[in-house]
Amino acid sequence: MAAPIDFYFDFSSPFGYLAAKRIEAIAENHGRTVAWHPILLGFIFKITESKPLVSFPLKGEYSVHDMKRSAREQKIPFAMPSNFPVGTIAAARAVLWAQTEHPALATPLIHALYDAFFADDKDISETGNVMACAESLGIDPDELETALQDDAVKSRLKTAVDEAVKRGVFGSPFIVVDDEPFWGHDRLEQVSRWLETGGW
Amino acid sequence: MAAPIDFYFDFSSPFGYLAAKRIEAIAENHGRTVAWHPILLGFIFKITESKPLVSFPLKGEYSVHDMKRSAREQKIPFAMPSNFPVGTIAAARAVLWAQTEHPALATPLIHALYDAFFADDKDISETGNVMACAESLGIDPDELETALQDDAVKSRLKTAVDEAVKRGVFGSPFIVVDDEPFWGHDRLEQVSRWLETGGW
Repeated sequence: MAAPIDFYFDFSSPFGYLAAKRIEAIAENHGRTVAWHPILLGFIFKITESKPLVSFPLKGEYSVHDMKRSAREQKIPFAMPSNFPVGTIAAARAVLWAQTEHPALATPLIHALYDAFFADDKDISETGNVMACAESLGIDPDELETALQDDAVKSRLKTAVDEAVKRGVFGSPFIVVDDEPFWGHDRLEQVSRWLETGGW
Repeated sequence: MAAPIDFYFDFSSPFGYLAAKRIEAIAENHGRTVAWHPILLGFIFKITESKPLVSFPLKGEYSVHDMKRSAREQKIPFAMPSNFPVGTIAAARAVLWAQTEHPALATPLIHALYDAFFADDKDISETGNVMACAESLGIDPDELETALQDDAVKSRLKTAVDEAVKRGVFGSPFIVVDDEPFWGHDRLEQVSRWLETGGW
């Protein structure tokens, strides 16, 4: 069995959202699965001396245009959230917790959170909206609320971000196929060709 | 006759080089020509609060890997120049001058300069290497040397950069198809589909 494709993403990343909609089909076409890794770009940007794409003059305006155009081309529902960018620590913790406590629901939770933020304009920096997504999948919101304050869950996210940085992850989406790194939604076609050919 | 595709580029941009190798075939496939616009990113980065891709921690290392991988995939000769990034004011002025004084040689000069820098590791921040590229195409190097110091040529480049910024250009390559902007070598497939379909 070939190794899963590692998919690193931040919940506040529009291109992470678009790629999340497409990566499972790409993986499946090549007999792979996806290992999902929520990270926090805010922390990583301090190391890479960067900041969110939308906050650069000129580039920021273009990037929103580009996101919308890419979404339309892929026929993926997309609207820039009213409050953007936001901190996504609760969403990331919820997913890491679900990956061990409710593994069958963890990936559906990722999609529910991304859809809430980028299709339905629900501010997922608010814990209440994260809990609503979880509850819609049958997860007990009280159980999740406790987990979000659990030191073990907090520390799991810190470790996950540290390990991502060690692996060279600096953006979202960031995809690793058999140790080959690809950054960006716009690398998905190349990821497909890499999987198809074994690389070049 | 459909409008030409506007292709903005900096001579110190690896992805500008890769895209320059491919844009004419893409244009021709859709009955278009290419209008070449050399610009100076160093100036534009001050406005966009940015800096060369390779100078960001983590992202810089990845970007070199990504450039080499994209070049190999496209079978385009590519080596990171020993001296990089460099100022490309002489190369840009030479092209703007050639576009009026030797119009048939201006586009070949662009390719000669890009090849010198990214395939043959000739430092095109040195005027001597710019002149050698021009001379290889039959341009009189003395005539070019005079032109590079001509106030009218200098001012033409300043105007070109100002006009690019006014149009929203902030990176290289930057491609405009019928007022639709595309940034990056990685948007070429999308540019093709845009030309094919008329947009979406």
